[in-house]
Amino acid sequence: MEFEILTLFPRLVAGPLEESILGKAVERGHISVRVRDIRDHAIGKHRVTDDTPYGGGAGMVMKPEPLVSAIEAAREAMGGPSRVVLMDPQGRRFTQAVARELHRAERLVLVCGRYEGYDERIRAFVDDEISIGDFVLTGGELAALSVVDATARLVPGVLGNEESAGFESFEEGLLEYPQYTRPPEFRGMTVPEILLSGDHAKIARWRRQQALLRTKERRPDLFAQLELGEKDRKLLENA
Amino acid sequence: MEFEILTLFPRLVAGPLEESILGKAVERGHISVRVRDIRDHAIGKHRVTDDTPYGGGAGMVMKPEPLVSAIEAAREAMGGPSRVVLMDPQGRRFTQAVARELHRAERLVLVCGRYEGYDERIRAFVDDEISIGDFVLTGGELAALSVVDATARLVPGVLGNEESAGFESFEEGLLEYPQYTRPPEFRGMTVPEILLSGDHAKIARWRRQQALLRTKERRPDLFAQLELGEKDRKLLENA
Repeated sequence: MEFEILTLFPRLVAGPLEESILGKAVERGHISVRVRDIRDHAIGKHRVTDDTPYGGGAGMVMKPEPLVSAIEAAREAMGGPSRVVLMDPQGRRFTQAVARELHRAERLVLVCGRYEGYDERIRAFVDDEISIGDFVLTGGELAALSVVDATARLVPGVLGNEESAGFESFEEGLLEYPQYTRPPEFRGMTVPEILLSGDHAKIARWRRQQALLRTKERRPDLFAQLELGEKDRKLLENA
Repeated sequence: MEFEILTLFPRLVAGPLEESILGKAVERGHISVRVRDIRDHAIGKHRVTDDTPYGGGAGMVMKPEPLVSAIEAAREAMGGPSRVVLMDPQGRRFTQAVARELHRAERLVLVCGRYEGYDERIRAFVDDEISIGDFVLTGGELAALSVVDATARLVPGVLGNEESAGFESFEEGLLEYPQYTRPPEFRGMTVPEILLSGDHAKIARWRRQQALLRTKERRPDLFAQLELGEKDRKLLENA
Protein backbone atom coordinates (compact mmCIF):
# COMPACT_ATOMS: atom_id res chain seq x y z
CA MET A 1 0.00 0.00 0.00
CA GLU A 2 1.21 3.50 -0.85
CA PHE A 3 0.79 6.57 1.34
CA GLU A 4 1.85 10.16 0.79
CA ILE A 5 1.45 12.82 3.45
CA LEU A 6 1.31 16.48 2.42
CA THR A 7 2.36 18.77 5.24
CA LEU A 8 4.04 22.03 6.14
CA PHE A 9 5.88 20.20 8.95
CA PRO A 10 7.69 17.19 7.45
CA ARG A 11 9.82 16.71 10.55
CA LEU A 12 6.70 16.39 12.69
CA VAL A 13 5.67 13.20 10.92
CA ALA A 14 9.16 11.74 10.43
CA GLY A 15 9.61 10.28 13.93
CA PRO A 16 6.34 8.37 14.12
CA LEU A 17 6.91 6.97 10.63
CA GLU A 18 10.35 5.63 11.49
CA GLU A 19 9.48 4.00 14.79
CA SER A 20 7.76 0.84 15.83
CA ILE A 21 5.48 -1.15 13.54
CA LEU A 22 5.19 1.53 10.87
CA GLY A 23 8.95 1.80 10.54
CA LYS A 24 9.26 -1.97 10.24
CA ALA A 25 6.46 -2.12 7.66
CA VAL A 26 8.27 0.43 5.51
CA GLU A 27 11.59 -1.36 5.91
CA ARG A 28 10.08 -4.68 4.86
CA GLY A 29 8.36 -3.10 1.88
CA HIS A 30 4.80 -3.80 3.02
CA ILE A 31 3.94 -0.14 2.74
CA SER A 32 5.62 2.99 1.40
CA VAL A 33 5.12 6.38 2.99
CA ARG A 34 6.33 9.52 1.27
CA VAL A 35 6.23 12.93 2.87
CA ARG A 36 5.83 16.03 0.70
CA ASP A 37 6.51 19.54 1.98
CA ILE A 38 3.68 21.78 0.78
CA ARG A 39 6.06 24.72 1.00
CA ASP A 40 8.07 23.27 -1.90
CA HIS A 41 5.02 24.00 -4.06
CA ALA A 42 4.76 27.65 -3.06
CA ILE A 43 6.20 30.19 -5.43
CA GLY A 44 8.20 33.37 -4.93
CA LYS A 45 11.14 34.16 -2.74
CA HIS A 46 9.23 33.75 0.50
CA ARG A 47 7.30 30.66 -0.54
CA VAL A 48 4.15 31.94 1.10
CA THR A 49 1.54 29.27 1.89
CA ASP A 50 -1.03 31.33 3.80
CA ASP A 51 -2.73 34.70 3.64
CA THR A 52 -5.33 36.74 5.54
CA PRO A 53 -8.99 35.76 5.10
CA TYR A 54 -11.32 37.66 2.78
CA GLY A 55 -13.93 39.39 4.88
CA GLY A 56 -11.56 39.90 7.78
CA GLY A 57 -11.09 38.03 11.02
CA ALA A 58 -8.24 36.56 13.02
CA GLY A 59 -6.10 33.71 11.81
CA MET A 60 -4.45 32.87 8.53
CA VAL A 61 -5.89 30.76 5.74
CA MET A 62 -3.96 28.30 3.60
CA LYS A 63 -3.76 29.50 0.01
CA PRO A 64 -5.21 27.21 -2.64
CA GLU A 65 -2.35 27.20 -5.19
CA PRO A 66 0.50 25.51 -3.23
CA LEU A 67 -1.81 22.90 -1.75
CA VAL A 68 -3.48 22.02 -5.05
CA SER A 69 -0.11 21.92 -6.81
CA ALA A 70 1.15 19.52 -4.10
CA ILE A 71 -1.97 17.35 -4.47
CA GLU A 72 -1.49 17.11 -8.23
CA ALA A 73 2.19 16.24 -7.86
CA ALA A 74 1.31 13.56 -5.30
CA ARG A 75 -1.32 12.00 -7.57
CA GLU A 76 1.27 11.98 -10.34
CA ALA A 77 3.89 10.29 -8.12
CA MET A 78 1.56 7.41 -7.25
CA GLY A 79 1.80 4.07 -9.04
CA GLY A 80 -1.87 4.20 -10.05
CA PRO A 81 -5.20 5.81 -9.17
CA SER A 82 -5.16 7.24 -5.67
CA ARG A 83 -7.62 8.64 -3.16
CA VAL A 84 -6.88 12.13 -1.87
CA VAL A 85 -8.11 12.68 1.69
CA LEU A 86 -8.28 16.06 3.39
CA MET A 87 -7.75 15.76 7.15
CA ASP A 88 -10.44 18.12 8.43
CA PRO A 89 -12.55 18.44 11.59
CA GLN A 90 -15.57 18.88 9.29
CA GLY A 91 -14.97 15.53 7.59
CA ARG A 92 -16.66 12.20 8.21
CA ARG A 93 -15.56 10.40 11.35
CA PHE A 94 -12.63 7.99 11.08
CA THR A 95 -13.50 4.52 12.40
CA GLN A 96 -12.19 1.01 11.92
CA ALA A 97 -14.74 0.57 9.09
CA VAL A 98 -13.31 3.63 7.33
CA ALA A 99 -9.81 2.21 7.83
CA ARG A 100 -10.90 -0.94 5.97
CA GLU A 101 -12.36 1.17 3.18
CA LEU A 102 -9.16 3.22 2.85
CA HIS A 103 -7.11 0.02 2.85
CA ARG A 104 -9.04 -1.12 -0.22
CA ALA A 105 -8.18 2.18 -1.97
CA GLU A 106 -4.52 1.04 -2.01
CA ARG A 107 -3.04 4.50 -2.64
CA LEU A 108 -3.75 7.35 -0.27
CA VAL A 109 -2.72 10.99 -0.34
CA LEU A 110 -3.33 12.57 3.08
CA VAL A 111 -3.52 16.36 3.11
CA CYS A 112 -2.69 18.14 6.39
CA GLY A 113 -3.87 21.69 6.92
CA ARG A 114 -2.60 24.28 9.36
CA TYR A 115 -3.59 27.71 10.66
CA GLU A 116 -7.15 28.88 10.88
CA GLY A 117 -8.20 26.72 7.95
CA TYR A 118 -8.02 26.17 4.20
CA ASP A 119 -9.29 28.18 1.35
CA GLU A 120 -12.67 26.58 0.69
CA ARG A 121 -11.87 25.97 -2.98
CA ILE A 122 -9.34 23.31 -1.99
CA ARG A 123 -12.19 20.91 -1.27
CA ALA A 124 -12.91 20.61 -5.00
CA PHE A 125 -9.55 18.86 -5.45
CA VAL A 126 -9.92 16.08 -2.87
CA ASP A 127 -11.91 12.85 -2.96
CA ASP A 128 -12.68 12.52 0.74
CA GLU A 129 -12.62 14.50 4.00
CA ILE A 130 -11.91 12.75 7.28
CA SER A 131 -11.87 13.80 10.94
CA ILE A 132 -10.49 11.77 13.83
CA GLY A 133 -12.76 13.45 16.36
CA ASP A 134 -14.46 16.53 17.77
CA PHE A 135 -11.38 18.25 19.09
CA VAL A 136 -9.14 20.93 17.67
CA LEU A 137 -5.60 20.04 16.69
CA THR A 138 -3.01 22.51 15.47
CA GLY A 139 -2.88 20.68 12.17
CA GLY A 140 -3.85 17.52 10.39
CA GLU A 141 -0.57 15.68 10.99
CA LEU A 142 -1.52 13.63 14.05
CA ALA A 143 -4.80 12.75 12.36
CA ALA A 144 -3.00 11.67 9.17
CA LEU A 145 -0.54 9.56 11.16
CA SER A 146 -3.45 7.89 12.97
CA VAL A 147 -5.01 7.05 9.60
CA VAL A 148 -1.71 5.65 8.30
CA ASP A 149 -1.24 3.58 11.46
CA ALA A 150 -4.77 2.11 11.61
CA THR A 151 -4.87 1.47 7.85
CA ALA A 152 -1.34 0.04 7.50
CA ARG A 153 -2.14 -2.51 10.23
CA LEU A 154 -4.67 -4.04 7.84
CA VAL A 155 -2.05 -4.65 5.12
CA PRO A 156 -1.13 -8.36 5.12
CA GLY A 157 2.32 -8.89 6.61
CA VAL A 158 2.51 -5.62 8.52
CA LEU A 159 1.54 -7.28 11.79
CA GLY A 160 3.60 -10.27 12.86
CA ASN A 161 1.95 -13.08 14.76
CA GLU A 162 2.89 -11.35 17.98
CA GLU A 163 0.70 -8.37 17.34
CA SER A 164 -1.90 -9.80 15.00
CA ALA A 165 -4.74 -10.34 17.42
CA GLY A 166 -4.93 -6.72 18.50
CA PHE A 167 -7.84 -5.58 16.40
CA GLU A 168 -9.88 -8.74 16.03
CA SER A 169 -12.44 -8.01 18.68
CA PHE A 170 -12.74 -4.33 17.80
CA GLU A 171 -13.52 -5.38 14.25
CA GLU A 172 -16.61 -7.15 15.56
CA GLY A 173 -17.87 -4.02 17.29
CA LEU A 174 -16.89 -5.29 20.74
CA LEU A 175 -14.45 -3.92 23.27
CA GLU A 176 -11.61 -6.21 24.32
CA TYR A 177 -11.98 -8.66 27.19
CA PRO A 178 -9.61 -8.12 30.17
CA GLN A 179 -6.08 -9.45 29.79
CA TYR A 180 -3.66 -10.64 32.46
CA THR A 181 -0.04 -11.70 32.46
CA ARG A 182 2.53 -12.54 35.11
CA PRO A 183 2.90 -12.14 38.04
CA PRO A 184 -0.17 -14.05 39.30
CA GLU A 185 -0.38 -11.63 42.22
CA PHE A 186 0.47 -7.96 41.91
CA ARG A 187 0.03 -5.67 44.92
CA GLY A 188 -2.66 -7.90 46.34
CA MET A 189 -4.54 -8.23 43.05
CA THR A 190 -4.84 -11.68 41.56
CA VAL A 191 -5.63 -13.15 38.15
CA PRO A 192 -9.18 -14.58 37.64
CA GLU A 193 -8.93 -18.30 38.40
CA ILE A 194 -10.59 -19.37 35.20
CA LEU A 195 -7.59 -18.09 33.22
CA LEU A 196 -5.33 -20.47 35.15
CA SER A 197 -7.70 -23.45 34.66
CA GLY A 198 -6.33 -24.66 31.33
CA ASP A 199 -9.92 -25.23 30.13
CA HIS A 200 -9.79 -23.47 26.78
CA ALA A 201 -13.48 -23.74 25.98
CA LYS A 202 -14.42 -22.20 29.33
CA ILE A 203 -11.80 -19.49 28.92
CA ALA A 204 -13.16 -18.62 25.47
CA ARG A 205 -16.72 -18.35 26.87
CA TRP A 206 -15.54 -16.21 29.80
CA ARG A 207 -13.68 -13.86 27.48
CA ARG A 208 -16.66 -13.49 25.18
CA GLN A 209 -18.89 -12.80 28.19
CA GLN A 210 -16.49 -10.17 29.52
CA ALA A 211 -16.23 -8.48 26.12
CA LEU A 212 -20.04 -8.35 25.87
CA LEU A 213 -20.42 -7.02 29.44
CA ARG A 214 -17.78 -4.34 28.94
CA THR A 215 -19.25 -3.18 25.70
CA LYS A 216 -22.71 -3.04 27.29
CA GLU A 217 -21.43 -1.08 30.27
CA ARG A 218 -18.90 1.25 28.65
CA ARG A 219 -20.31 1.66 25.16
CA PRO A 220 -24.08 1.26 25.06
CA ASP A 221 -23.98 2.85 21.59
CA LEU A 222 -21.82 0.03 20.19
CA PHE A 223 -23.75 -2.58 22.16
CA ALA A 224 -27.03 -1.43 20.60
CA GLN A 225 -25.63 -2.18 17.14
CA LEU A 226 -24.65 -5.77 17.91
CA GLU A 227 -26.67 -8.62 16.48
CA LEU A 228 -26.50 -11.08 19.35
CA GLY A 229 -26.95 -14.80 18.75
CA GLU A 230 -28.53 -17.27 21.17
CA LYS A 231 -25.14 -18.10 22.74
CA ASP A 232 -24.28 -14.47 23.43
CA ARG A 233 -27.68 -13.80 24.99
CA LYS A 234 -27.17 -16.77 27.32
CA LEU A 235 -23.70 -15.55 28.30
CA LEU A 236 -25.20 -12.20 29.26
CA GLU A 237 -28.08 -13.76 31.19
CA ASN A 238 -25.71 -15.93 33.19
CA ALA A 239 -23.28 -13.12 33.99
CA MET B 1 0.74 23.24 32.39
CA GLU B 2 2.80 20.09 32.92
CA PHE B 3 2.61 16.96 30.77
CA GLU B 4 4.47 13.69 31.03
CA ILE B 5 4.12 10.94 28.44
CA LEU B 6 4.94 7.35 29.42
CA THR B 7 5.87 5.28 26.39
CA LEU B 8 7.99 2.42 25.11
CA PHE B 9 8.84 4.54 22.04
CA PRO B 10 10.22 7.88 23.23
CA ARG B 11 11.57 8.71 19.77
CA LEU B 12 8.10 8.35 18.30
CA VAL B 13 6.79 11.30 20.31
CA ALA B 14 9.94 13.45 20.13
CA GLY B 15 9.38 14.89 16.63
CA PRO B 16 5.81 16.09 17.12
CA LEU B 17 6.74 17.66 20.47
CA GLU B 18 9.60 19.65 18.98
CA GLU B 19 7.78 21.00 15.96
CA SER B 20 5.27 23.72 15.32
CA ILE B 21 3.13 25.24 18.05
CA LEU B 22 3.91 22.61 20.70
CA GLY B 23 7.65 23.13 20.28
CA LYS B 24 7.21 26.88 20.58
CA ALA B 25 5.00 26.52 23.66
CA VAL B 26 7.70 24.44 25.37
CA GLU B 27 10.43 26.88 24.35
CA ARG B 28 8.48 29.82 25.75
CA GLY B 29 7.74 27.98 28.99
CA HIS B 30 3.96 27.91 28.57
CA ILE B 31 3.95 24.13 28.92
CA SER B 32 6.47 21.47 29.87
CA VAL B 33 6.39 18.01 28.32
CA ARG B 34 8.54 15.23 29.71
CA VAL B 35 8.84 11.83 28.09
CA ARG B 36 9.52 8.77 30.22
CA ASP B 37 10.65 5.45 28.77
CA ILE B 38 8.63 2.70 30.44
CA ARG B 39 11.49 0.29 29.71
CA ASP B 40 13.67 2.18 32.20
CA HIS B 41 11.32 0.89 34.89
CA ALA B 42 11.63 -2.76 33.88
CA ILE B 43 14.00 -4.91 35.88
CA GLY B 44 16.50 -7.61 34.93
CA LYS B 45 19.04 -7.80 32.18
CA HIS B 46 16.48 -7.87 29.39
CA ARG B 47 14.20 -5.22 30.85
CA VAL B 48 11.11 -7.16 29.82
CA THR B 49 7.92 -5.11 29.60
CA ASP B 50 5.51 -7.68 28.18
CA ASP B 51 4.62 -11.33 28.58
CA THR B 52 2.18 -13.91 27.19
CA PRO B 53 -1.45 -13.69 28.32
CA TYR B 54 -2.84 -15.97 31.02
CA GLY B 55 -5.40 -18.26 29.44
CA GLY B 56 -3.56 -18.32 26.12
CA GLY B 57 -4.14 -16.46 22.88
CA ALA B 58 -2.09 -14.47 20.38
CA GLY B 59 -0.42 -11.21 21.24
CA MET B 60 1.63 -10.00 24.15
CA VAL B 61 0.35 -8.18 27.22
CA MET B 62 2.12 -5.33 29.00
CA LYS B 63 3.23 -6.40 32.45
CA PRO B 64 1.89 -4.41 35.40
CA GLU B 65 5.14 -3.77 37.35
CA PRO B 66 7.13 -1.55 34.93
CA LEU B 67 4.09 0.49 33.97
CA VAL B 68 2.94 1.07 37.54
CA SER B 69 6.48 1.92 38.62
CA ALA B 70 6.67 4.46 35.78
CA ILE B 71 3.31 5.94 36.78
CA GLU B 72 4.45 6.34 40.39
CA ALA B 73 7.71 7.97 39.33
CA ALA B 74 5.82 10.34 37.04
CA ARG B 75 3.42 11.37 39.82
CA GLU B 76 6.43 11.99 42.03
CA ALA B 77 8.16 14.14 39.39
CA MET B 78 5.15 16.45 39.05
CA GLY B 79 5.04 19.80 40.83
CA GLY B 80 1.74 18.92 42.52
CA PRO B 81 -1.29 16.65 42.27
CA SER B 82 -1.62 15.19 38.80
CA ARG B 83 -4.17 13.27 36.78
CA VAL B 84 -2.98 9.98 35.29
CA VAL B 85 -4.73 9.12 32.02
CA LEU B 86 -4.52 5.74 30.32
CA MET B 87 -4.80 6.07 26.53
CA ASP B 88 -7.14 3.19 25.75
CA PRO B 89 -9.71 2.38 23.05
CA GLN B 90 -12.08 1.37 25.88
CA GLY B 91 -11.87 4.79 27.51
CA ARG B 92 -14.30 7.68 27.28
CA ARG B 93 -14.22 9.62 24.04
CA PHE B 94 -11.87 12.58 23.78
CA THR B 95 -13.67 15.78 22.74
CA GLN B 96 -13.05 19.49 23.02
CA ALA B 97 -15.05 19.45 26.29
CA VAL B 98 -12.70 16.78 27.69
CA ALA B 99 -9.73 18.88 26.56
CA ARG B 100 -11.07 21.78 28.65
CA GLU B 101 -11.50 19.46 31.62
CA LEU B 102 -7.92 18.14 31.28
CA HIS B 103 -6.64 21.69 30.95
CA ARG B 104 -8.13 22.45 34.38
CA ALA B 105 -6.28 19.44 35.85
CA GLU B 106 -3.00 21.35 35.20
CA ARG B 107 -0.73 18.27 35.46
CA LEU B 108 -1.29 15.29 33.21
CA VAL B 109 0.47 11.94 33.01
CA LEU B 110 -0.46 10.20 29.74
CA VAL B 111 0.15 6.45 29.67
CA CYS B 112 0.68 4.82 26.26
CA GLY B 113 0.16 1.09 25.87
CA ARG B 114 1.45 -1.23 23.19
CA TYR B 115 0.98 -4.80 22.02
CA GLU B 116 -2.24 -6.70 22.48
CA GLY B 117 -3.13 -4.74 25.59
CA TYR B 118 -2.35 -4.11 29.25
CA ASP B 119 -2.61 -6.29 32.26
CA GLU B 120 -6.05 -5.40 33.58
CA ARG B 121 -4.69 -4.57 37.03
CA ILE B 122 -3.01 -1.47 35.64
CA ARG B 123 -6.37 0.28 35.54
CA ALA B 124 -6.40 0.50 39.34
CA PHE B 125 -3.45 2.92 39.17
CA VAL B 126 -4.88 5.50 36.77
CA ASP B 127 -7.44 8.27 37.31
CA ASP B 128 -8.96 8.34 33.85
CA GLU B 129 -9.13 6.35 30.59
CA ILE B 130 -9.45 8.16 27.28
CA SER B 131 -9.91 7.05 23.66
CA ILE B 132 -9.55 9.28 20.60
CA GLY B 133 -11.88 7.10 18.52
CA ASP B 134 -13.15 3.71 17.40
CA PHE B 135 -10.09 2.64 15.48
CA VAL B 136 -7.11 0.51 16.39
CA LEU B 137 -3.71 2.13 16.68
CA THR B 138 -0.47 0.28 17.32
CA GLY B 139 -0.08 2.16 20.57
CA GLY B 140 -1.33 5.09 22.55
CA GLU B 141 1.32 7.55 21.38
CA LEU B 142 -0.61 9.31 18.60
CA ALA B 143 -3.62 9.52 20.93
CA ALA B 144 -1.49 11.02 23.72
CA LEU B 145 0.04 13.55 21.33
CA SER B 146 -3.44 14.55 20.16
CA VAL B 147 -4.46 15.11 23.78
CA VAL B 148 -1.34 17.20 24.45
CA ASP B 149 -1.93 19.25 21.30
CA ALA B 150 -5.64 19.95 21.87
CA THR B 151 -5.13 20.64 25.59
CA ALA B 152 -1.99 22.78 25.28
CA ARG B 153 -3.82 25.04 22.81
CA LEU B 154 -6.10 26.08 25.68
CA VAL B 155 -3.19 27.27 27.84
CA PRO B 156 -3.08 31.09 27.74
CA GLY B 157 -0.17 32.30 25.63
CA VAL B 158 0.31 29.09 23.64
CA LEU B 159 -1.58 30.46 20.67
CA GLY B 160 -0.43 33.77 19.29
CA ASN B 161 -2.96 36.15 17.80
CA GLU B 162 -2.33 34.59 14.43
CA GLU B 163 -3.68 31.23 15.41
CA SER B 164 -6.02 32.15 18.23
CA ALA B 165 -9.32 32.06 16.41
CA GLY B 166 -8.99 28.48 15.32
CA PHE B 167 -11.10 26.79 17.89
CA GLU B 168 -13.66 29.44 18.67
CA SER B 169 -16.48 28.11 16.59
CA PHE B 170 -15.83 24.49 17.44
CA GLU B 171 -16.11 25.42 21.10
CA GLU B 172 -19.68 26.47 20.45
CA GLY B 173 -20.57 23.12 18.92
CA LEU B 174 -20.57 24.49 15.38
CA LEU B 175 -18.44 23.62 12.39
CA GLU B 176 -16.39 26.42 10.86
CA TYR B 177 -17.81 28.69 8.16
CA PRO B 178 -16.01 28.57 4.78
CA GLN B 179 -12.84 30.62 4.50
CA TYR B 180 -11.26 32.23 1.44
CA THR B 181 -8.02 34.02 0.75
CA ARG B 182 -6.24 35.32 -2.34
CA PRO B 183 -6.36 34.91 -5.29
CA PRO B 184 -9.93 36.11 -5.91
CA GLU B 185 -10.20 33.65 -8.77
CA PHE B 186 -8.55 30.24 -8.70
CA ARG B 187 -9.09 27.85 -11.61
CA GLY B 188 -12.42 29.42 -12.42
CA MET B 189 -13.64 29.43 -8.82
CA THR B 190 -14.36 32.80 -7.26
CA VAL B 191 -14.78 34.14 -3.73
CA PRO B 192 -18.36 34.82 -2.51
CA GLU B 193 -19.07 38.50 -3.26
CA ILE B 194 -20.24 39.28 0.23
CA LEU B 195 -16.72 38.69 1.59
CA LEU B 196 -15.43 41.44 -0.70
CA SER B 197 -18.21 43.88 0.28
CA GLY B 198 -16.51 45.40 3.33
CA ASP B 199 -19.86 45.26 5.20
CA HIS B 200 -18.72 43.61 8.41
CA ALA B 201 -22.17 43.14 9.93
CA LYS B 202 -23.39 41.38 6.77
CA ILE B 203 -20.24 39.26 6.64
CA ALA B 204 -20.69 38.21 10.27
CA ARG B 205 -24.31 37.16 9.56
CA TRP B 206 -23.32 35.25 6.43
CA ARG B 207 -20.58 33.40 8.31
CA ARG B 208 -22.91 32.48 11.14
CA GLN B 209 -25.49 31.28 8.61
CA GLN B 210 -22.91 29.18 6.77
CA ALA B 211 -21.65 27.64 10.03
CA LEU B 212 -25.22 26.72 11.01
CA LEU B 213 -26.00 25.27 7.57
CA ARG B 214 -22.81 23.21 7.48
CA THR B 215 -23.35 21.83 10.93
CA LYS B 216 -26.94 20.94 10.03
CA GLU B 217 -25.88 19.23 6.83
CA ARG B 218 -22.66 17.51 7.89
CA ARG B 219 -23.25 16.89 11.59
CA PRO B 220 -26.93 16.51 12.41
CA ASP B 221 -25.84 15.03 15.78
CA LEU B 222 -24.08 18.28 16.78
CA PHE B 223 -26.87 20.39 15.27
CA ALA B 224 -29.47 18.61 17.41
CA GLN B 225 -27.62 19.72 20.54
CA LEU B 226 -27.57 23.42 19.65
CA GLU B 227 -29.82 25.84 21.50
CA LEU B 228 -30.73 28.20 18.71
CA GLY B 229 -31.79 31.76 19.43
CA GLU B 230 -34.30 33.76 17.42
CA LYS B 231 -31.53 35.26 15.24
CA ASP B 232 -30.08 31.87 14.34
CA ARG B 233 -33.51 30.49 13.45
CA LYS B 234 -34.10 33.44 11.10
CA LEU B 235 -30.70 32.95 9.47
CA LEU B 236 -31.61 29.34 8.75
CA GLU B 237 -35.07 30.21 7.44
CA ASN B 238 -33.63 32.79 5.05
CA ALA B 239 -30.87 30.53 3.77
